[in-house]
Amino acid sequence: MTIFEESIAAHESSNGKLSVASRVPLNDNHDLAVYYTPGVAEVCREIARDPARARTLTLKHNTIAVISDGSAVLGLGNLGAAGAIPVMEGKAILFKKFADVDAFPICLDTQDTEEIIKAVKNIAPVFGGINLEDIAAPKCFEIERRLKHELNIPVVHDDQHGTAVVVLAALINALRLKNLDAEKAQIVINGAGAAGTAIAELLLAYGVKKIIVCDSQGIIHKTRKDLSDVKMLLAQITNEKNIEGTLADAVQNADIFIGVSVAGALTQDMVRQMAKDPIIIAMANPVPEIMPDEALAAGAFIVATGRSDFQNQINNVLAFPGIFRGALDNGITEITNSMFVTAAKNLAACVPEPTREKIIPSPFDAAVVPAVARAMVA
Amino acid sequence: MTIFEESIAAHESSNGKLSVASRVPLNDNHDLAVYYTPGVAEVCREIARDPARARTLTLKHNTIAVISDGSAVLGLGNLGAAGAIPVMEGKAILFKKFADVDAFPICLDTQDTEEIIKAVKNIAPVFGGINLEDIAAPKCFEIERRLKHELNIPVVHDDQHGTAVVVLAALINALRLKNLDAEKAQIVINGAGAAGTAIAELLLAYGVKKIIVCDSQGIIHKTRKDLSDVKMLLAQITNEKNIEGTLADAVQNADIFIGVSVAGALTQDMVRQMAKDPIIIAMANPVPEIMPDEALAAGAFIVATGRSDFQNQINNVLAFPGIFRGALDNGITEITNSMFVTAAKNLAACVPEPTREKIIPSPFDAAVVPAVARAMVA
Repeated sequence: MTIFEESIAAHESSNGKLSVASRVPLNDNHDLAVYYTPGVAEVCREIARDPARARTLTLKHNTIAVISDGSAVLGLGNLGAAGAIPVMEGKAILFKKFADVDAFPICLDTQDTEEIIKAVKNIAPVFGGINLEDIAAPKCFEIERRLKHELNIPVVHDDQHGTAVVVLAALINALRLKNLDAEKAQIVINGAGAAGTAIAELLLAYGVKKIIVCDSQGIIHKTRKDLSDVKMLLAQITNEKNIEGTLADAVQNADIFIGVSVAGALTQDMVRQMAKDPIIIAMANPVPEIMPDEALAAGAFIVATGRSDFQNQINNVLAFPGIFRGALDNGITEITNSMFVTAAKNLAACVPEPTREKIIPSPFDAAVVPAVARAMVA
Repeated sequence: MTIFEESIAAHESSNGKLSVASRVPLNDNHDLAVYYTPGVAEVCREIARDPARARTLTLKHNTIAVISDGSAVLGLGNLGAAGAIPVMEGKAILFKKFADVDAFPICLDTQDTEEIIKAVKNIAPVFGGINLEDIAAPKCFEIERRLKHELNIPVVHDDQHGTAVVVLAALINALRLKNLDAEKAQIVINGAGAAGTAIAELLLAYGVKKIIVCDSQGIIHKTRKDLSDVKMLLAQITNEKNIEGTLADAVQNADIFIGVSVAGALTQDMVRQMAKDPIIIAMANPVPEIMPDEALAAGAFIVATGRSDFQNQINNVLAFPGIFRGALDNGITEITNSMFVTAAKNLAACVPEPTREKIIPSPFDAAVVPAVARAMVA
């Protein structure tokens, strides 16, 4: 039985993965009077007088929404709202398991930017945070930016920032093993969607100076005429020497390759053109930009992928539970890149003695969530 | 300590009432691979191919939304979205306790009819049903009608239909005790909002012939110029003799008074003007249209209220858990008045030997939910 067959069978037998539970007893009429009518009327009045009291008197204190429009589900493309449910439901139970955050999946039956923004704003009152998920670029940038501005609860597009935090954590330990300063490291990011863009921005915030970003058309540079607004911004803040060319040109003498693109995008020849002992973080799913054994054979010093069956798995679950645990506990209304940098540093430090085979901790390491959560302070 | 003080303290110490829970194990990397990536990808693809599979592979099979805009919270008026959370959260845990339905509270930050409809449609994909709650009349009628038409899952405005089912159940047993035929009974309904309108319609569907409905301006009749569309329809289907006047005129010789109005609306003098041995169902909350001791002193045969501290409590919790349990189990996409009538009959039959002091079962009677659920068949 493949993992896919096993997954279908497991979902079928459990009828889904999430349920709700009561946090209070409901055993007699007195309980009904306390937690429902008539007692609840006073709780409603109290919150109507002072809406901030919803944080202490309702589920809002520990509940977030995991929201997708199904436009970019995993690496599968646009599956629509129903097709996104299993991922959002899965994230919700991971939030609960790893960080005791009560998360509820919401899949939106619209893929229009303005309708998505309006729907999220309209359902926000019961939630203490919003995790956006699997929303296609470039609309994901506008949606996150607007919601961060218009809501007073934390809003995080996890495909951007969760990924960026874990990549930076892995990079911190990899650079330490190579004894290379971040500001001297020459980094190529292949892929300029949600993840690639956020990774570039977070590496810059960390202090990296030399980044070249490629998309499917090659190196992103200031003279290209085909760039979206977000890619034009990337052209401004990366590629200082304004190099033109293909991915093969970009990786010449690079120390680090970060792939958030497609299977097989990085060849062994390209790895051989990189600087000595290169670091390869190849996150295309399920088949990475280059397979670990091929990369190592071509001279790679450290290889990481998104897969659980190879060492050094770059997995968002290392970031998102702690990010919202910390934001909820500390009453953070907006999460900044500076907090994400600290989260990545703390996450890297969860592996006190990194090796080439272990630059990143396991999600089951109990130190992970508190380390990330600790970074969510104003 | 009053029940209100006790309720505030209890909500404060529990930090709300609802949490989420995982239905599956998440103990190692293999569990992550089965319930999250990479295995979940196949579940997403399966649902994208056949959206109906969401019913067997996701939480949708057992999950409903409890949705309000906070425009008519209990009897407290327009408290807004945040002020409605404690009631919606309370309903959600009652759904779980009494019928093992997973219900999640959604409070909408809009009170515009079209925006409410759009928001509910947009978040519908993860839900197997929609329970609308505490939305003011008359917009509640339009919202429910449109959503029933535009969604392929059951949509029930509980303030209308839940209330109507329980009132009809109580009435069935009260008429039996009085040995009076439904079609001969003269009934006055005071209150023409969501509940009053639905009660009138359901009593007619059951076979009642003689109903007069009053609002704050008196008897609803065809010659009034101040009627909304819904009240004009009520004038067509009730008050056959087109009587005009006040509530005091309406109750002359009536057998049954049903109040969904305001404290003190029914006086002892009015009760004395009713037919012999009248039935009084006075549901204004928290203070009924007439207190039970006063009604009995004025000659009432049976008195019911909405309160848990008096006998014969008319409580929606007798209806809504079973309605959605049955709809989910039987794959019902639209619930009809005929199903609601059957539900009321089944609910009445849960008290095999009704007495003046007990015309309706307790919510803790284990027979209640199955009896109501059994009525949800096409």
